[in-house]
Amino acid sequence: MTLNVGIIGLGAMGSDHAKRIAERTSGVKLAGVADLKPELVEKYSKKYGAKAFESGAALVASPDIDAVMVVTSPDDQHSQFVLQAIEAGKYVFCEKPLMPTVAECQKIIDAELNHGKRLVQVGFMRRYGEGYIEMKKAIDSRKYGEPLLVHATHRNYEVPTSYDTTMSVSNTAVHEADLLHWLLGEDYESGITFLPKKQTKYTHDNLHDPQIVMLDTKSGVHIDLEVFVNNHMGYDINCEIVCEEGTIALKTPTNMSVKTKFQHEDPIPEEFTERFKDAYDNEIQQWANGVQKNQITGPSSWDGLVAMVTCDALGKSRDEGGVREPITLPEKPALYKD
Amino acid sequence: MTLNVGIIGLGAMGSDHAKRIAERTSGVKLAGVADLKPELVEKYSKKYGAKAFESGAALVASPDIDAVMVVTSPDDQHSQFVLQAIEAGKYVFCEKPLMPTVAECQKIIDAELNHGKRLVQVGFMRRYGEGYIEMKKAIDSRKYGEPLLVHATHRNYEVPTSYDTTMSVSNTAVHEADLLHWLLGEDYESGITFLPKKQTKYTHDNLHDPQIVMLDTKSGVHIDLEVFVNNHMGYDINCEIVCEEGTIALKTPTNMSVKTKFQHEDPIPEEFTERFKDAYDNEIQQWANGVQKNQITGPSSWDGLVAMVTCDALGKSRDEGGVREPITLPEKPALYKD
Amino acid sequence: MTLNVGIIGLGAMGSDHAKRIAERTSGVKLAGVADLKPELVEKYSKKYGAKAFESGAALVASPDIDAVMVVTSPDDQHSQFVLQAIEAGKYVFCEKPLMPTVAECQKIIDAELNHGKRLVQVGFMRRYGEGYIEMKKAIDSRKYGEPLLVHATHRNYEVPTSYDTTMSVSNTAVHEADLLHWLLGEDYESGITFLPKKQTKYTHDNLHDPQIVMLDTKSGVHIDLEVFVNNHMGYDINCEIVCEEGTIALKTPTNMSVKTKFQHEDPIPEEFTERFKDAYDNEIQQWANGVQKNQITGPSSWDGLVAMVTCDALGKSRDEGGVREPITLPEKPALYKD
Amino acid sequence: MTLNVGIIGLGAMGSDHAKRIAERTSGVKLAGVADLKPELVEKYSKKYGAKAFESGAALVASPDIDAVMVVTSPDDQHSQFVLQAIEAGKYVFCEKPLMPTVAECQKIIDAELNHGKRLVQVGFMRRYGEGYIEMKKAIDSRKYGEPLLVHATHRNYEVPTSYDTTMSVSNTAVHEADLLHWLLGEDYESGITFLPKKQTKYTHDNLHDPQIVMLDTKSGVHIDLEVFVNNHMGYDINCEIVCEEGTIALKTPTNMSVKTKFQHEDPIPEEFTERFKDAYDNEIQQWANGVQKNQITGPSSWDGLVAMVTCDALGKSRDEGGVREPITLPEKPALYKD
Repeated sequence: MTLNVGIIGLGAMGSDHAKRIAERTSGVKLAGVADLKPELVEKYSKKYGAKAFESGAALVASPDIDAVMVVTSPDDQHSQFVLQAIEAGKYVFCEKPLMPTVAECQKIIDAELNHGKRLVQVGFMRRYGEGYIEMKKAIDSRKYGEPLLVHATHRNYEVPTSYDTTMSVSNTAVHEADLLHWLLGEDYESGITFLPKKQTKYTHDNLHDPQIVMLDTKSGVHIDLEVFVNNHMGYDINCEIVCEEGTIALKTPTNMSVKTKFQHEDPIPEEFTERFKDAYDNEIQQWANGVQKNQITGPSSWDGLVAMVTCDALGKSRDEGGVREPITLPEKPALYKD
Repeated sequence: MTLNVGIIGLGAMGSDHAKRIAERTSGVKLAGVADLKPELVEKYSKKYGAKAFESGAALVASPDIDAVMVVTSPDDQHSQFVLQAIEAGKYVFCEKPLMPTVAECQKIIDAELNHGKRLVQVGFMRRYGEGYIEMKKAIDSRKYGEPLLVHATHRNYEVPTSYDTTMSVSNTAVHEADLLHWLLGEDYESGITFLPKKQTKYTHDNLHDPQIVMLDTKSGVHIDLEVFVNNHMGYDINCEIVCEEGTIALKTPTNMSVKTKFQHEDPIPEEFTERFKDAYDNEIQQWANGVQKNQITGPSSWDGLVAMVTCDALGKSRDEGGVREPITLPEKPALYKD
Repeated sequence: MTLNVGIIGLGAMGSDHAKRIAERTSGVKLAGVADLKPELVEKYSKKYGAKAFESGAALVASPDIDAVMVVTSPDDQHSQFVLQAIEAGKYVFCEKPLMPTVAECQKIIDAELNHGKRLVQVGFMRRYGEGYIEMKKAIDSRKYGEPLLVHATHRNYEVPTSYDTTMSVSNTAVHEADLLHWLLGEDYESGITFLPKKQTKYTHDNLHDPQIVMLDTKSGVHIDLEVFVNNHMGYDINCEIVCEEGTIALKTPTNMSVKTKFQHEDPIPEEFTERFKDAYDNEIQQWANGVQKNQITGPSSWDGLVAMVTCDALGKSRDEGGVREPITLPEKPALYKD
Repeated sequence: MTLNVGIIGLGAMGSDHAKRIAERTSGVKLAGVADLKPELVEKYSKKYGAKAFESGAALVASPDIDAVMVVTSPDDQHSQFVLQAIEAGKYVFCEKPLMPTVAECQKIIDAELNHGKRLVQVGFMRRYGEGYIEMKKAIDSRKYGEPLLVHATHRNYEVPTSYDTTMSVSNTAVHEADLLHWLLGEDYESGITFLPKKQTKYTHDNLHDPQIVMLDTKSGVHIDLEVFVNNHMGYDINCEIVCEEGTIALKTPTNMSVKTKFQHEDPIPEEFTERFKDAYDNEIQQWANGVQKNQITGPSSWDGLVAMVTCDALGKSRDEGGVREPITLPEKPALYKD
């Protein structure tokens, strides 16, 4: 049985997902598209033979749509579509972040609890990257002993001028905020965001760049994370787990290497879509498979809330000059326990 | 429109393709399976909801099957299924090698020429590996000048005792025989297979291991290839193109690296299915897409013939003590010109 | 003219220097040795044909000795020998740290200022390591823009049980404390020592391991340094300078690489003497050359003081629970300005 | 006791050795220099306070000179100085190749046999490179089983136009000719030099570039060596020993690595003096130590003869179109057995 998927939001990420659903995901059909811009709706409905919906609400409501992907920017509607899908009992994949505030995350959790079943998956795609999956296996095996420290970097070549100081945490560090507690299998205790005095000349007045984020977990693992979004070098994601008997490090897989004029060169990816193509593909394929089997296991609304609470604490630390902030979660509902 | 694919042959490679078609290829359905062993037919027809055929011939003939994958060992039937599919005007994907002899390859080419359209694709999956695709781009761009030399290795951890001396060329070097003339964009002039006196203790009486294969192209590029199938180290595929202003080398992509007790360790793949997973997936997805569009562009019957002529010359060189053998192709039919 | 060098202290480091002076330093002679243990004095005086002195004081005073190396542990005598050498107008190389307290460093500086010429060199050998020298060139060139961040690790396989919590700063981080302000070409503003709650099982009651040290410079470069002295993995020194247009990283040079059973292995050094052999050799050769030319340029008494002030602040931060401590230097005497 | 060394020949290599002897070799003094160009003699005698000799013969004959380094180009005199030194019973270090013909090598061996003691060392410095020393240890240990194959490259950025086709073997491959039989611990059986049709545009009429050299040893190890002296990429020396249970590969040690604009860059050395600085330094220090102890162990006249016989066979193979040539050594005199 083919799964009829509808996508709301056809910007850069949404159209990438549309292509993925239409061309390289098994068992699914791109059945419908919606966007505030009618020209995008026309373009992709034609390109992939998908039904054009006049609104996201109409798409969610349509009997032609089995499951929904919400890839709009996280404004009011974003929330509305997710809630509407839950009410309709349809599975809904929501690009990260789930919601811009903890309160809205909580509303979605409440709706899901009310419904009594997990319907929402949040787009923390890194958990599907092969490197992180191998690292988690190695950590969980305790082959190299207990994890003690984590060093990570999240580096982008550059960001648009609309990107500001707060987004280094809420848009960028949020990936590691989700990833690292999943990798380590435990919750955070507290966090710090520190703004080093010296900044790159490639930033602008509203963006402090680079920034340093620190987290520690309940068991006492210390994490440091460099967030540097105008590094003018490439999309360079690193993560090293320092354990009692060795370190486990993410590698950027490379397919080709060149030696030329006194240099041996390996490529650094330019974009996250290139670096994490495998992660996005695996994420959506496994989501589709889960929906087909009526049981999804990816990042949940709860994970969305955890990320938001963490980012809130990190943002507060930054605004208060780098003091350590506690990270306090509400009690985890049984629905979200493994 | 979903493409209904039938698979003949459900051994290791065939069942891998069955899983790929059923679970992670977009736009296709595993519609039928056939094998000489009824228990395999039952197993996979159940597992994937595919029709169980009592014979390969019945599968090819069935109106429920749009396109056929032949993954049997290359004996008479293998040839028969491909010819039957051509006659029926159905697309047929044939695992490498196309046929065990040049004469049989020619018969398939004749049938295809008679039919007037390309219907056959041969399973030289390496052309779909991301590393080789990047290398081909770099070579074709001539950014580093003309290619002059190629150093390659084809290394396996071990092979079963049924694997004998001739198979180092016909089963193993055949991959590079296809790949390298595609990478370089030109035909071979001659070849040598050399059996070094010193062999590994892990081989047996009927297998000379390792072997050295040399090829040169029409323009004079010199290629050397180590074939070592009991290396007791891993599946280790290397390829370096030495150009006028630099070298272009394949890298084995790695996702994770470990430092422990005085060693920094990167994994070496154990199996070709692991190393070339991306290549197999891309190959089959693109084949399916091509069939859907009624135009396939992958390795053709002609490529199958070229590989076979090359391996014949390399085998003759080996049998005659390492003398250089010319590699002489028939004229290339217009159907196979790009 | 051969330089007659006398060494006081013949433990592990002292005997290593004795061998270096006697066997692979140009233009010098191991002319005398002294140690509190007569059997060591006898052993090395015989081995290298050096005069056996009954005391360090006698060695410094002897007309047979042109220049002195003090490699004793930094107790009272250590100080006494350096001061005695200054008084005698002899060049003296003092293994790091110069002195265990800031006050004692100051006393040596005063003596040197009184003498009116630099006579003391401190054994911060890392400045002579080829990797750091290349990094300094790259930083100073500003080819990759301004340095913004530094990530460093100082990792040892294990330490004896006599090594305690304070030594992670005073014995270990002291190397980076000296190195990094030299690499960056500026002074520190403040520092933090943070003790992560989770420790390795390979430590003991008196040693908190690992520790995290942070420093920031006057211009605002943020530095983080992992100090992990029982890592059970190897002597693993890393240093990455994050600049505006790229990163500059130290590499551990390796001479040989092995592929075996599913692993590609590079060695990790076991000991600092192995990792920094080139640095020690260059350091002593250049010191000897400088003494011969009557002008030494290596790390000075002032550098010894800077390291000590820095370590004091880091120690205070650690004792006060990880608060940021200012690093305040006295005014730099003209003698120590370049 | 300081060893008084005299150097004959003050060109690029000779002046490099002069600096090494004068500035960074322990236990030696640059006591004398000679060259056909008086201005060079004046320059270096002044620079290092060495006696200026009017001729090489005068230098060898002088009682002020304990041991001689002959670094002239291998013409008649070269031979004459070595023979004169042997007659005088003085140790003589002779840059490779020992002599330009097998007959002349034999004459030196005869003189040495006549004298009854080894006095000659040939400048095959690679045996002193740390990478090769580690590889030899790993091979000799048989930890990875028997060696079966060797893949090597000898690549230079460019050569002057005076360098011609024969020199690819006699000047360049000669290094590996010596090195590889030493690494493997056995003699060669035969060799081939093959000239690939396709050449680099950076070569000239009198130089066929690149070339492929193959050797096989008595036990049947197969060796292939790329000689490419105008690669326009760098001085790139590689050597991989393929054994029964793994491969052992030389690495070019690097001290620093850079990430910038979509590339991760490691340096490739520009010159052999840079790449093998450690090898040259170790070679000369150990030679000097050996002379002091009256027992030298480095590459002997016999090794010089072996290299010459090997290169003669490889040259003959090249001139006869790439046929396999036997490599036949005279009987090894007892003096040269370990």
